[in-house]
Amino acid sequence: MELTKPLDALNQARDQRILVELKNGSQFVGKLKAFDVHLNTVLDDAQEIVDGEAKRNLGRILLRGDTIILLSPQKGQ
Amino acid sequence: MELTKPLDALNQARDQRILVELKNGSQFVGKLKAFDVHLNTVLDDAQEIVDGEAKRNLGRILLRGDTIILLSPQKGQ
Amino acid sequence: MELTKPLDALNQARDQRILVELKNGSQFVGKLKAFDVHLNTVLDDAQEIVDGEAKRNLGRILLRGDTIILLSPQKGQ
Amino acid sequence: MELTKPLDALNQARDQRILVELKNGSQFVGKLKAFDVHLNTVLDDAQEIVDGEAKRNLGRILLRGDTIILLSPQKGQ
Amino acid sequence: MELTKPLDALNQARDQRILVELKNGSQFVGKLKAFDVHLNTVLDDAQEIVDGEAKRNLGRILLRGDTIILLSPQKGQ
Amino acid sequence: MELTKPLDALNQARDQRILVELKNGSQFVGKLKAFDVHLNTVLDDAQEIVDGEAKRNLGRILLRGDTIILLSPQKGQ
Amino acid sequence: MELTKPLDALNQARDQRILVELKNGSQFVGKLKAFDVHLNTVLDDAQEIVDGEAKRNLGRILLRGDTIILLSPQKGQ
Repeated sequence: MELTKPLDALNQARDQRILVELKNGSQFVGKLKAFDVHLNTVLDDAQEIVDGEAKRNLGRILLRGDTIILLSPQKGQ
Repeated sequence: MELTKPLDALNQARDQRILVELKNGSQFVGKLKAFDVHLNTVLDDAQEIVDGEAKRNLGRILLRGDTIILLSPQKGQ
Repeated sequence: MELTKPLDALNQARDQRILVELKNGSQFVGKLKAFDVHLNTVLDDAQEIVDGEAKRNLGRILLRGDTIILLSPQKGQ
Repeated sequence: MELTKPLDALNQARDQRILVELKNGSQFVGKLKAFDVHLNTVLDDAQEIVDGEAKRNLGRILLRGDTIILLSPQKGQ
Repeated sequence: MELTKPLDALNQARDQRILVELKNGSQFVGKLKAFDVHLNTVLDDAQEIVDGEAKRNLGRILLRGDTIILLSPQKGQ
Repeated sequence: MELTKPLDALNQARDQRILVELKNGSQFVGKLKAFDVHLNTVLDDAQEIVDGEAKRNLGRILLRGDTIILLSPQKGQ
Repeated sequence: MELTKPLDALNQARDQRILVELKNGSQFVGKLKAFDVHLNTVLDDAQEIVDGEAKRNLGRILLRGDTIILLSPQKGQ
């Protein structure tokens, strides 16, 4: 599916599980529920991942956009 | 409950206890009283959490939005 | 007292002593005299606190908002 | 091909493989699908490169613009 | 004297000696000549202070506002 | 040649080789092709310089303005 | 000479040699040719100063404003 702008990639991933990596090196996986132009992002059923293993189950989390390095849908596109 | 934008997740958590994690690694738990688009956040009955234990009782605190990495309602959604 | 937005918490604390913690780890206590939307904050009779003890008496200080992590009224609410 | 402004360099590289280097030192290679004025960038078939070798296959990734140092088309111009 | 907004504290300190502390830990004392909303600040007869002693005499300096943590008039208010 | 504003210095250096130093300490030399008010900068035939020696030939690169400390035309003015 | 706003200090120093100190600790001396409201600054005949000695002769340099801590005219005022 073609993309006109970067956030289209998130629109296409709504309600899918995505990986989010933060500037402090931590990683979260969860179901993408909402985001905005600052990349503020809400995940449901979120887990913090450490060394490839789930470390904490956090339920719903809101990640501040300016702490994010990378977002990636967990299924291909 | 569906979310149109990320801050809806905070609207739904008003007056509930939430976890807030900061860029410097510190964690606070308290009752969410107010927030704005910068994620400036006011918690009542706030406690600083260190290694999973309450370290300081702070009463009301105002956290500056740009120091925040993650907010999470302490009850599921 | 209910809050409509985060800065209401500071409006209610005007002329009271508040605690301010900065990104570099330093802490100040003083009487809140003025603040703005950037959280630029003026304290009177300010003291820098180190390990829970007053280290420096500074009189009036203006703290730049973007260096602040946390503000907390020293009396409950 | 002449450039009027910096982002023209990305327009000319659309659907080509590009190298992206981040402030934390990590490197990604992938096919450029979308970008915006903040340099938020979407790559498809993205790989994280460590010491010149592909370390992770990530599929589609969205990199936040403010984490980027350098973008470079992998073919000359 | 009452303050309506934080920068009033600087207006009242014009032509007085003030202390300025920067994010990198350095301290300057000088006569306040000018400032703006970003806290860009000009001091005359400025001295850099290290361990409570004057280390460098700099004459006039312009300090960029976003490097400043704290400004404090050297006389009470 | 007189300058009215800082970016005039880059206008005069268009298509010349310039040195660019980044906040992370790395240095690039290349032919200046484009820039904008954020100092986002495109160099052609770019080389990364380490200890005064060319380390990598990168072809065209786009450097994000907020990572740049210094730009300098390699020939005098 | 009185100053209405901080940048007046730079207007008065045009074509004079000034000292510029950066957030990374480096120091430059050169003839002030141009600046803007972000403190982007062009120096001619610029030298990098290390431990009080000229280390590099750079000719013309453009320093990005947000990397600057301090500017100081080398002659008094």
